[in-house]
Amino acid sequence: MKKKNKSAESLKNLGERVISDINKNKNPNVIVPIRALSNVIFNEKTKTLELGNKTSTRYFFNVAHAKKFLQTIEIASISKDLINEEKHASLRDVFYMAKRTIPGTNINLVDEQSESDDIIEDLELITGNSREQLNINANKNGSVVGKVTIEDAGDTIRWDKLGSGGWSVPSNVENIKFKKIDAKYIVYMEKAAVWERLNEDKFWERENCIIISSQGQTTRGIRRLLQRMYEEFKLPIYVLCDYDAYGFYIYSVLKYGSINLAHASEKMAIPSVRYLGITSKDVEKYDLKKHFIKLKDHDIARLKQLSEYDWFKNSKDWQKEFKTMKQYGSKAEIQALSARGISFISKVYLPEKIKSKDFLE
Amino acid sequence: MKKKNKSAESLKNLGERVISDINKNKNPNVIVPIRALSNVIFNEKTKTLELGNKTSTRYFFNVAHAKKFLQTIEIASISKDLINEEKHASLRDVFYMAKRTIPGTNINLVDEQSESDDIIEDLELITGNSREQLNINANKNGSVVGKVTIEDAGDTIRWDKLGSGGWSVPSNVENIKFKKIDAKYIVYMEKAAVWERLNEDKFWERENCIIISSQGQTTRGIRRLLQRMYEEFKLPIYVLCDYDAYGFYIYSVLKYGSINLAHASEKMAIPSVRYLGITSKDVEKYDLKKHFIKLKDHDIARLKQLSEYDWFKNSKDWQKEFKTMKQYGSKAEIQALSARGISFISKVYLPEKIKSKDFLE
Repeated sequence: MKKKNKSAESLKNLGERVISDINKNKNPNVIVPIRALSNVIFNEKTKTLELGNKTSTRYFFNVAHAKKFLQTIEIASISKDLINEEKHASLRDVFYMAKRTIPGTNINLVDEQSESDDIIEDLELITGNSREQLNINANKNGSVVGKVTIEDAGDTIRWDKLGSGGWSVPSNVENIKFKKIDAKYIVYMEKAAVWERLNEDKFWERENCIIISSQGQTTRGIRRLLQRMYEEFKLPIYVLCDYDAYGFYIYSVLKYGSINLAHASEKMAIPSVRYLGITSKDVEKYDLKKHFIKLKDHDIARLKQLSEYDWFKNSKDWQKEFKTMKQYGSKAEIQALSARGISFISKVYLPEKIKSKDFLE
Repeated sequence: MKKKNKSAESLKNLGERVISDINKNKNPNVIVPIRALSNVIFNEKTKTLELGNKTSTRYFFNVAHAKKFLQTIEIASISKDLINEEKHASLRDVFYMAKRTIPGTNINLVDEQSESDDIIEDLELITGNSREQLNINANKNGSVVGKVTIEDAGDTIRWDKLGSGGWSVPSNVENIKFKKIDAKYIVYMEKAAVWERLNEDKFWERENCIIISSQGQTTRGIRRLLQRMYEEFKLPIYVLCDYDAYGFYIYSVLKYGSINLAHASEKMAIPSVRYLGITSKDVEKYDLKKHFIKLKDHDIARLKQLSEYDWFKNSKDWQKEFKTMKQYGSKAEIQALSARGISFISKVYLPEKIKSKDFLE
């Protein structure tokens, strides 16, 4: 309830400021921090991407601003209704809820979802609440198991009693309450197939950990879930990815945040996560060269991009990884470990690496 | 255990036939039904796509066949080991497990995953077992809730006690046991965001139904789960899709099977499913034209393809849908209903359509 009040309160403040401007015969306006690369900085202290302090002011009585101003007020109002009704909407829903013709004109308030998405990101900054706290959800994906008991939407849910499927992670985890956590660490992996391998082998039970995955890029729901478990229980988080630029990027986003969500880093980035695999050392040690896949142009381009990121620029370990992969001209997948036996990953690879703290930071 | 024996038995038979050929100094061979459009027929009686009776014989002592013959035997052996060890592997895992250099040569048994995938489909036909029964899993995706209790991997799981997330559907549902089902019907939807809407509104509790979704094309795990619930409990299944060619195609695959999996129709197709939304009638009734999205060339091509399918060719209703959409030159999304209120879909649209049996077949 506290969260609900906080988000509703900030939206109410926004409305009251506008009304107060009108009553004073001032040109109503909202101040919006600028979300552009020119205003994104890497905070060396917190080790996350964040926005600088450049702002722009959006006026109602300004031909260039009026539409965006209206969009901002309309979507703030949609969000406030959602919070009051205790409902959540997807980005797509909000687009359709905002999409209507402005009375007396033939102009739509929004024509494309990118417009409403944009305003939602503005509102995150204006109100200081994440999209999820504004009751607007991203996509749902991913599964989790482990010796954890939570309370959610009136149910008590044991993550260790969910068979081969696990708990389906919702898009919004803000209202989950953790009742009991019995785990030493968390392994997050990019592939659902690897998660199913570890779950079938009861890796989480034997090693006393939590395993969680989405498919490909990490969903916001999972990033927030990981962050909450780290902050509330100080559980170490290990990231298990393919040996390729895309896997490295998934790790980078989890740890430092992403450029287009720099404004949300505070709520999403987890500077303590560590990279668990696959590395160039693993390639040699576990003889993965015979399972190499040739790099394509976009792999090489992405690798170059990664090597130039502020947070990787001064990391000897990561620069070595980027250089070695380029020399190999090849990448390798986690599943290549299956060539050594279907449960090699859960019985040998992961326990060895975790025991010897063979992580990259 | 019965299932395990059946699959293991069929693989053993395959091996024994080969050994028997060798002992008789015969050229070892396997007979494989042909999986090509030329051998795919639409069975008017069962209303599903299935394979005809054309076969080809794969010989060991034949330069053109030898490699495929070896691949078949090798992957049959991998599958048998998996079944014996009670483990499941992904298609990608099986590829890596099969990928090795044939001794005394510089030839790999498989070079690309498409080769091992192909053999796995052959083995489904040769042994009469689905990929899942051979312990080889497809991708995992999707969530389910409803008043259902199952047993899976030693756990008793209540699908009605899983908060906002639901049960994460595994890739393989062959070993699930249904303990209790209290539901009048099932709604399958293509979008996770719509599922979250219906779950938050407790649609399944109010309407006494099961709601299930993946994201986009239906996973094999979900198709099998739906089929099992239909066959074991005769629950009607309604398919909720966008008003577009892709949504229609998702429905078509669920109901009739797909051309490239025609051999698996018996285990996957569910001829009784009905199409619940969105239709051209809904477009008029709920004023969705203002939310139209223009058709692209690939939409029109897909629409033409659909209209020529054997099972749609003689359906007046479906031909009308295809024609109307082409005339509109536009498609519409389920979420467009949100313009009428966030819970319009769960409180008005679905109850009205289901009550008046406003389905397409």
